[in-house]
Amino acid sequence: MPGSAVGVYLPMSKNSPGNYFEDFRIGQVIRHATPRTVSTGDVALYTGLFGGRFAVQSSDVFAKAIGYPRSPLDDLLVFHIVFGKTVPDVSLNAVANLGYAGCCFRSPVYPGDTLSAQSEVIGLKENSSRKTGIVYVRTTGYNQDLKPVLEYVRWVMVRKRDAAAPAPGDHVPRLPTVLDPKVLGEACPPINVAAYDLALAGSLYRFADYEVGEEIDHVDGVTVEEAEHMTATRLYQNTARIHFNQFVEGKGRFGRRLIYGGHVISLARALSFNGLANAFHVAAINGGRHVAPLFAGGTIFAWSEVLAKAELPGRDDVGGLRLRTIATKDRPCADFPLKSGDDYDPAVLLDLDYWVLVIR
Amino acid sequence: MPGSAVGVYLPMSKNSPGNYFEDFRIGQVIRHATPRTVSTGDVALYTGLFGGRFAVQSSDVFAKAIGYPRSPLDDLLVFHIVFGKTVPDVSLNAVANLGYAGCCFRSPVYPGDTLSAQSEVIGLKENSSRKTGIVYVRTTGYNQDLKPVLEYVRWVMVRKRDAAAPAPGDHVPRLPTVLDPKVLGEACPPINVAAYDLALAGSLYRFADYEVGEEIDHVDGVTVEEAEHMTATRLYQNTARIHFNQFVEGKGRFGRRLIYGGHVISLARALSFNGLANAFHVAAINGGRHVAPLFAGGTIFAWSEVLAKAELPGRDDVGGLRLRTIATKDRPCADFPLKSGDDYDPAVLLDLDYWVLVIR
Amino acid sequence: MPGSAVGVYLPMSKNSPGNYFEDFRIGQVIRHATPRTVSTGDVALYTGLFGGRFAVQSSDVFAKAIGYPRSPLDDLLVFHIVFGKTVPDVSLNAVANLGYAGCCFRSPVYPGDTLSAQSEVIGLKENSSRKTGIVYVRTTGYNQDLKPVLEYVRWVMVRKRDAAAPAPGDHVPRLPTVLDPKVLGEACPPINVAAYDLALAGSLYRFADYEVGEEIDHVDGVTVEEAEHMTATRLYQNTARIHFNQFVEGKGRFGRRLIYGGHVISLARALSFNGLANAFHVAAINGGRHVAPLFAGGTIFAWSEVLAKAELPGRDDVGGLRLRTIATKDRPCADFPLKSGDDYDPAVLLDLDYWVLVIR
Repeated sequence: MPGSAVGVYLPMSKNSPGNYFEDFRIGQVIRHATPRTVSTGDVALYTGLFGGRFAVQSSDVFAKAIGYPRSPLDDLLVFHIVFGKTVPDVSLNAVANLGYAGCCFRSPVYPGDTLSAQSEVIGLKENSSRKTGIVYVRTTGYNQDLKPVLEYVRWVMVRKRDAAAPAPGDHVPRLPTVLDPKVLGEACPPINVAAYDLALAGSLYRFADYEVGEEIDHVDGVTVEEAEHMTATRLYQNTARIHFNQFVEGKGRFGRRLIYGGHVISLARALSFNGLANAFHVAAINGGRHVAPLFAGGTIFAWSEVLAKAELPGRDDVGGLRLRTIATKDRPCADFPLKSGDDYDPAVLLDLDYWVLVIR
Repeated sequence: MPGSAVGVYLPMSKNSPGNYFEDFRIGQVIRHATPRTVSTGDVALYTGLFGGRFAVQSSDVFAKAIGYPRSPLDDLLVFHIVFGKTVPDVSLNAVANLGYAGCCFRSPVYPGDTLSAQSEVIGLKENSSRKTGIVYVRTTGYNQDLKPVLEYVRWVMVRKRDAAAPAPGDHVPRLPTVLDPKVLGEACPPINVAAYDLALAGSLYRFADYEVGEEIDHVDGVTVEEAEHMTATRLYQNTARIHFNQFVEGKGRFGRRLIYGGHVISLARALSFNGLANAFHVAAINGGRHVAPLFAGGTIFAWSEVLAKAELPGRDDVGGLRLRTIATKDRPCADFPLKSGDDYDPAVLLDLDYWVLVIR
Repeated sequence: MPGSAVGVYLPMSKNSPGNYFEDFRIGQVIRHATPRTVSTGDVALYTGLFGGRFAVQSSDVFAKAIGYPRSPLDDLLVFHIVFGKTVPDVSLNAVANLGYAGCCFRSPVYPGDTLSAQSEVIGLKENSSRKTGIVYVRTTGYNQDLKPVLEYVRWVMVRKRDAAAPAPGDHVPRLPTVLDPKVLGEACPPINVAAYDLALAGSLYRFADYEVGEEIDHVDGVTVEEAEHMTATRLYQNTARIHFNQFVEGKGRFGRRLIYGGHVISLARALSFNGLANAFHVAAINGGRHVAPLFAGGTIFAWSEVLAKAELPGRDDVGGLRLRTIATKDRPCADFPLKSGDDYDPAVLLDLDYWVLVIR
């Protein structure tokens, strides 16, 4: 099994078939392949693909003035790169990506840093059909000093190679539904509030100006092209087949290449600048749901609700906003679309629950 | 009003509605949001999008040999980044981008530099309908040392929020139609002519070889894709909605996303290498007209006429060529298409009047 | 003739018509235009376009651990950049790109290096029609220290300007069909095998695990978009018209823009990670054939056969595998498609014969 620290299984063919449900074990640790040195080249391409305008990630001068050594990478770019590494080992034979929990950014990442990833299997639950099972992994992204930069749990439904094989384990882990505010500041250095220039940052609204329950339409819409989502997903070295292969997908359920769900998250984050310009750091992702698939040609809109506000222990520079950001397809968000009866509005693609830090 | 040094107006919603005609004042200074550190990543992506081949911008070794500390950024990349910053404050509610004047490159920009932009409102003229007005701004791009790198005037027709609102001013500034040759060398260090290698630069033609009235077909054509123009425009953090939102534009006047006019300028400049390979620096843009809109799928061709030649005071290393470059859509330029009766030939997209510096 | 060290021919127009068959001479040396400083920006965009996962090229930390000063550029990116420089001088008037031979990577290339290229005409053979002739050039890519980084021979069929012109020469050079293993290590520093981490590299298979005659399906397929192949080809500053101009090509033989053959090579190399993850260096290309053209919308698959294994004289760190990699369009490769009777299977696009180095 490529990338496994414990595997000695050598399949007949040199190519990797990926892991099936019965290949996993509780406590198994997988060191994922292909460490990645990130660069200002990645930053430029990510800017070209998403158009982010948060000043901290855009300007070394701005970042230095407030307390960073230089501009950090966009938090979601870090997430996507770490996530991408896990795909060949965890989700190549996945039927569905079911959820995330406890995603916490633990250290800023700068151009020149080298990212690697490791996952521990923390839960396994066979489905009643015995054809699939759910695999829970806790993934940690590290920098070149082996300092954790990102940690999250995800669970995916994975095919069995052989339905008759015994279940490799039976344990469903308890997962947090929301991260504790005390961990939110780990990847944010102390900020010099006096040096934070609101005009350059693009908004006069500080932490105190946001209220729980407030809803913000992010106004703009952006249409996605095939070349864009494939370029982004390859930039993360994410090899999930469903995003790239029209020959196969054209005959499949949707007849189209499915866009990586993280692409929608990055688009929504970039759009959210219009209303959240001073929310310069995604500190944690409590959970998220890809409500519907996105295909090229769709136009993404987004809106956010402030779910909660939190003080960070010992810090008076930044505060935490817990946001729920909804992304829609071909549906402007001036009226904050969400539900249609008990179900989601059919335009909703993404329902994301996360913490951002806002200047005070 | 985000990005304003003088504004205290806080709209009801956190998102920015942009400025309307009655929000501007003569003398108003707007510090635009999102400073931007440029990098070799931006250079690479710009190369991938336009394919520029000017040796000065492509090779640090070539640039150093002739007198630069290293390769400067393409002048138009600098223009687009500075321009992009002004969009949220100046032209979010624009009906039309009417013109440019007095665009002068004042200092070279290198990877690692941080660009920011500021605009002064220098003219306001309400239209007779009272529904719109023309806003004239002088925009300056700065580097991290607050040294001006670029200066230009543009004027745009902007909607009024309320037709009944009084006009906020009534002044049309006098603008230059052509820049004086004495300012053309500001962003070009003294060039070591002996070290300028014509073979590596791609052409044997020097300043002396060009004649006023000479017409040059740039021969090649390049087709534009949606993913390309959107990636370029996002790279500049230009958020003008008309370029990105097929859901809205599909129902609009053109039924298509409109391509940023600057994209055509960059394509024409890249094509102009074939005939102007030693015109390594765009020193100034006297004015330009986007004669017709461009949409994805169109193939751009270009040709240039030498309008004038100028000595630069005190310099015997480079000379100025005033060029008129015409870009067309789906129309090769071997016969230099321009007019059809009193009007432009229907294939013409761009009519650009600018100064380039050519090695002597 | 632009870019020629010996040319004094100044055509009437400033633009370049390219060279015709009768413009070449045996022994002629052409210094090609536009040297190019490569950067981590190029690396990022190349990753976004092809999604390579070889650890040596992805991680500075991995590369340093095993003996490189930092991650070298992907070998094929170097090839494409050097190749691109030759197009305006060698193949602008080409009818067909006929073949490659003796392509050898001679020194690693790192971000910050500046590449330039020079070609010597080593053969000329007029065709019986007298309308075209075959030009053989030996091209060498250099870094800023004038150290060769790459050398190859290619031959192209080039139009004559004037069928009545006398043939400029008549010599067909003898070319190697396969490179000698003793030259394969030139661009690979001594590797610290103990520090080579198989889990991070993505495969447990070493040199000893591969057998002559072994066939490996690379499994995945990737669909190509117009924006992608044009962005890649521009990144190499390759100006061959057939790749970019839908207005002209739409009326041509195929009705479509033809994708640069090197794009298929890079896609096949990236796909080959799945089965050849430890083949971290393309050391030489013995020869290759673009069996059929590729157009946007096609999905590329690939498989490889091990043709030979070679010890490298004096080295026990790496071994050479001679591979034949076949790329197909819209045709998965689980059954290793190649021939259909005496001809190629109609799905085959590329038949590439090359040496890779694999960790021992």
